[in-house]
Amino acid sequence: MIDPWGSSNVDYEKLVQQFGIKPFKDLLNDLTDPHLLMRRGIIFGQRDYGRIVKAIRDKEDFAVITGMMPSGKMHIGHKMVVDQIIWYEKHGADIYIPIADMESYSARGVDFEASRELAINEYITNYIALGLDFKKSNINVYLQSKNLLVNDLAYVLSKKVTFNEMKAIYGFNGSTNMAHMQAPLIQVADILHPQLEEFGGPKPTVVPVGPDQDPHIRLTRDIANRFKNQLNFIAPSSTYHRFITGLTGGKMSSSQPKTAIFLSDSIEEAENKVKTAKTGGRESLKEQQEKGGDPINCVIYEMLLYHLMESDEKLQEILEDCKSGNIMCGECKAHTADLMKKFFEEFSSKRKKGAKNAEKVLDGAKVC
Amino acid sequence: MIDPWGSSNVDYEKLVQQFGIKPFKDLLNDLTDPHLLMRRGIIFGQRDYGRIVKAIRDKEDFAVITGMMPSGKMHIGHKMVVDQIIWYEKHGADIYIPIADMESYSARGVDFEASRELAINEYITNYIALGLDFKKSNINVYLQSKNLLVNDLAYVLSKKVTFNEMKAIYGFNGSTNMAHMQAPLIQVADILHPQLEEFGGPKPTVVPVGPDQDPHIRLTRDIANRFKNQLNFIAPSSTYHRFITGLTGGKMSSSQPKTAIFLSDSIEEAENKVKTAKTGGRESLKEQQEKGGDPINCVIYEMLLYHLMESDEKLQEILEDCKSGNIMCGECKAHTADLMKKFFEEFSSKRKKGAKNAEKVLDGAKVC
Repeated sequence: MIDPWGSSNVDYEKLVQQFGIKPFKDLLNDLTDPHLLMRRGIIFGQRDYGRIVKAIRDKEDFAVITGMMPSGKMHIGHKMVVDQIIWYEKHGADIYIPIADMESYSARGVDFEASRELAINEYITNYIALGLDFKKSNINVYLQSKNLLVNDLAYVLSKKVTFNEMKAIYGFNGSTNMAHMQAPLIQVADILHPQLEEFGGPKPTVVPVGPDQDPHIRLTRDIANRFKNQLNFIAPSSTYHRFITGLTGGKMSSSQPKTAIFLSDSIEEAENKVKTAKTGGRESLKEQQEKGGDPINCVIYEMLLYHLMESDEKLQEILEDCKSGNIMCGECKAHTADLMKKFFEEFSSKRKKGAKNAEKVLDGAKVC
Repeated sequence: MIDPWGSSNVDYEKLVQQFGIKPFKDLLNDLTDPHLLMRRGIIFGQRDYGRIVKAIRDKEDFAVITGMMPSGKMHIGHKMVVDQIIWYEKHGADIYIPIADMESYSARGVDFEASRELAINEYITNYIALGLDFKKSNINVYLQSKNLLVNDLAYVLSKKVTFNEMKAIYGFNGSTNMAHMQAPLIQVADILHPQLEEFGGPKPTVVPVGPDQDPHIRLTRDIANRFKNQLNFIAPSSTYHRFITGLTGGKMSSSQPKTAIFLSDSIEEAENKVKTAKTGGRESLKEQQEKGGDPINCVIYEMLLYHLMESDEKLQEILEDCKSGNIMCGECKAHTADLMKKFFEEFSSKRKKGAKNAEKVLDGAKVC
């Protein structure tokens, strides 16, 4: 049997084993309509996700928290997070979207005003264009530096965290600046504040992250437990997703433009970038006809897997055609580039509309 | 020549020499009507106070910042700070009174709500009763935890401070909790925020403190200089005052009730506490008639010096009568107890009035 969602990246498996992250697939059948990213194993791990499954099923209050750090441009890999938010929103979650301007200042030197501009013109604009409806009342977006409640909570929580712990988790040392040391605690408060009385009290919450963010999650869950008696927190749940591979085969990164399709790229740029991406093709056409392609190590296949092919059946067909040598990279690339072109045609026009409304989103935000 | 204001405590002199604090008396003649605490050398040291003298003389903008940490009860030694605020207010200063609820939480475990109650019912009530008129538009009182601007500024400033520095100044170590480590930086922001554009931009500022607070002042001045280019701060000035001696001869401390006359004491309690205080009397009446008393080591004399004797001439008379053996402790105590009784008679009735208005002060505060 072929597993169309298998990953060549063994690190993800290791993470699951080493740090107590549980496989997501264990809970997959408990969801009546799992998201494409869940069905395809891109969301591969979870902690305490059973609480979220139950909340969805029983239509109980729950919240999703997923921040954006305004620094640089969004690439197509970031779309994954927005797709998840939209899915959760449809399944009854309250959505909290902190804009990490404090972290962006201490980690990247971006001042609060510049963060605000970037959040509006890049991030919120893209979120709108990707289909997130900020007019819905259950979506809360805020700048960390403008949220007194979150800052106060961070301070309250900080009393039960020592420098030694922060050092062990983040590798801080004596020359670490004090703002940098505080940033993770602001993030802990971002994640826990939806459980304050002001927001309806303790409830299941989930944070969808990449596995690199797991130290934050573990710290947050630890702190939640330390304040269990005072603030009745339920330790937040989390899910872990794989990252899309960059165009050149390594990591897709905004700071390395050759690796990324940016959401602000023109239709032509996006289309052309697909055409030049690294595939899982063999050295010769003859070899590929004999052995078939290697879709698991193919950027083009990942584009379909993550973003461009909604139908599982069609994706399975392409996978089998590739593996059996029935379809060559040229044809597959042309097809995928065409899908990307169509996506960007629609997306670019939505982006223009989104830009007009993005500023209002932040000004009208329900921030305490 | 007799120096009626001399201190037996040599540590104050050492401080001036070791840490670069300048004697206050150097600038005394530049003030047209120095406060009693200045004239009498109770305010004994300063840093960059020339800026403040100039601002007073030229009627230029300047600010005074003096916080209150709501923990425990106020004693008569604390009156000194309020006396200074009132003097500065009359001399054209904008007054900033941060209520250090964040510090009180991290240092003493007092939660924000309890701090607020204590600030209203004890501190602000006493400040009103001591004569501070909160209705004046140039007085800004705020809770740290409710002042977003101060919290944001603290974070911005924290980027140029390392853990090693905080360790060197405050003796922090690996087991220090993160809230405790942040508290001094909130205080730095308390002191510097009156110089932000929102409050009229850079201006001379002064912080009246006890010498134990000088490490905070030095840190604040250092940080102000580090942000000179970005935020144009003028390094804050400071003054240093001696502490009134406790009733039993040591430190007057709210946590040791036998040492202190509390502002919430009844008239009788206050009067009786004076009567039982340690004096600079000799072992026998005869010895005292011959050698005279020792007013420099007399709690009763300090009560007059700091609080109960406005006239310098009369104080000088008492001093000389004591030193020459013309007045014995019994008589002097009775006189001082009577003055204390009169002070408390007036103060207690003002305190009742103050209590009614204290809550309004905080709710109507011009907090950003």
